[in-house]
Amino acid sequence: MKLLDLYAKLKKDINLIEKELERSIDVNHPVLREASLHLLKAGGKRIRPVFVLLGAKFGQYDLGRVKFVAVPLELIHMASLVHDDVIDDANTRRGQLTVRSKWDNRVAMYAGDYIFAKALSIVTQLPDPSIHRIMSNALVEMSIGEMEQIRFFFHTGQTVRDYMLRIKRKTALLLAISCQLGAIAAGAPEQTAKRLYDFGYYTGMAFQIRDDLLDLCGTEKEIGKPPGSDIKQGNITIPVIFALQNPQLRPALLEEISRIEACDGQTDISAFLNMIRRSEGISRAEAMASTYIDKAIRSLEGLPNIQAKKDLVSIAHFVGNRSY
Amino acid sequence: MKLLDLYAKLKKDINLIEKELERSIDVNHPVLREASLHLLKAGGKRIRPVFVLLGAKFGQYDLGRVKFVAVPLELIHMASLVHDDVIDDANTRRGQLTVRSKWDNRVAMYAGDYIFAKALSIVTQLPDPSIHRIMSNALVEMSIGEMEQIRFFFHTGQTVRDYMLRIKRKTALLLAISCQLGAIAAGAPEQTAKRLYDFGYYTGMAFQIRDDLLDLCGTEKEIGKPPGSDIKQGNITIPVIFALQNPQLRPALLEEISRIEACDGQTDISAFLNMIRRSEGISRAEAMASTYIDKAIRSLEGLPNIQAKKDLVSIAHFVGNRSY
Repeated sequence: MKLLDLYAKLKKDINLIEKELERSIDVNHPVLREASLHLLKAGGKRIRPVFVLLGAKFGQYDLGRVKFVAVPLELIHMASLVHDDVIDDANTRRGQLTVRSKWDNRVAMYAGDYIFAKALSIVTQLPDPSIHRIMSNALVEMSIGEMEQIRFFFHTGQTVRDYMLRIKRKTALLLAISCQLGAIAAGAPEQTAKRLYDFGYYTGMAFQIRDDLLDLCGTEKEIGKPPGSDIKQGNITIPVIFALQNPQLRPALLEEISRIEACDGQTDISAFLNMIRRSEGISRAEAMASTYIDKAIRSLEGLPNIQAKKDLVSIAHFVGNRSY
Repeated sequence: MKLLDLYAKLKKDINLIEKELERSIDVNHPVLREASLHLLKAGGKRIRPVFVLLGAKFGQYDLGRVKFVAVPLELIHMASLVHDDVIDDANTRRGQLTVRSKWDNRVAMYAGDYIFAKALSIVTQLPDPSIHRIMSNALVEMSIGEMEQIRFFFHTGQTVRDYMLRIKRKTALLLAISCQLGAIAAGAPEQTAKRLYDFGYYTGMAFQIRDDLLDLCGTEKEIGKPPGSDIKQGNITIPVIFALQNPQLRPALLEEISRIEACDGQTDISAFLNMIRRSEGISRAEAMASTYIDKAIRSLEGLPNIQAKKDLVSIAHFVGNRSY
């Protein structure tokens, strides 16, 4: 099955979530509304709402309840992108101007604050304090992750563990709680929600590793931005950490990273990309992503064999082969 | 009674809140912890926790519960200050370096995000969804208020109503819910919580008006920064709005504001300050603040005559005469 087929099946429900997303940011303030809408219209795969919906299929599926989780989780993702773009000085995302470049950093900061607050306010319409707790705890972890990212810019001494904790906070955690909270909002058993959390977590780890691989190996056409954007801003990803472990490659690679840092990323990085692409860092990172996909699929063992389970497996395979 | 006497009576409880505040930001990340601690140590009157504690005296006072409201409300205030300083390019606050000036804007943005998230995560330790709802809704309003502030910079066409809505979102709302949530967390009757909300709201409005008056009429020594900081950054406050209503004064004042705007605030503003100080804008704003204080005190009518009620009246009078 292709991912598009899955989306076709969920289309009616996703459309409703999409409408609710628009309604949620319909604020009586011109710049705030435009900035938020701009962000919403820039699109995205809406993978978090999809995970919520599929997670909810393991309980008493009720879109009227579940939307109070699906909408906030996508809003949190959107808000973190706006704040990310401020940090990265990013001018475009997915081929669209960013909020900070279309307006300015101040608007981007407050638009992000507004969307974060809105997310938390919407979820409180469900009278289940444990859902509020899980969501706000995830936000705390995510914000620590953002700071960690800055701290590790151009830090060649970082370990595989540093990287893993960072992508957990940056990506995997929100996907994990998307599956989990969908299940909890639908009243699924705790054990089911826990397995779904694991599925989302492992899939998220694989997703981010593949994303980081794409930044190094993809073409500008495939990834919608020039390859090597990560290293230009100082973000050292897992293929690079693995490549640095090779004693033959290490000295030249360190020198090249220092040079890029000294130029503040404003330099030709083709030598760096060639070194990484020819290193075993690529295959080792690919293997790591595959392992996570296997773990994700194994997390679902023991869950009832409903259609949603097959859909989650399809998504995991799709993420594992990701080249978009 | 003086405000200090009141604080002396609550000292033990405030000290515990202070310790909890420190503990709440004890995160395993050097810059994040230092930045948050720096902010915490910069002090402040802790008026929000005081309002929470006094509000809780109208119910079953239990510090072990009430702290889960008092700590988040002070954290929200702190986080909004850090984000404010980014917008204002502020280098000092209360005579201390701001986070954005000691580190940078990126650290300030993420430290603010972290503290906001932490606040919401702490409050979810109380299993009362209505408390979560009130707090997150207030955050939404506050973030709209922040954007409104930017929108109205140097906007001489703004009305008294625009100003009032702005200071409600900026200041009064958080003080209102501090009183209200203290009462709710202590299980006080709904009507009591409502009256306390009104008290906090009116006191907050008066507080901000007096703050705005001080910026125009105080000395650098009194207010810890040069007078006229508001107009330098484009913030047009109520004495100025009133002064602009005087047809004799209006043309010269408009011209002076345009000139300050054209210089991006980097200019001598003594002519502006003299115009405002000699205008009826000052006395009209003072009268407005007094009216709010009267309303605040009247809101408490009907509440039991406990010590906390007298303390709230003292605070209201203190705010009314504020010159610090």
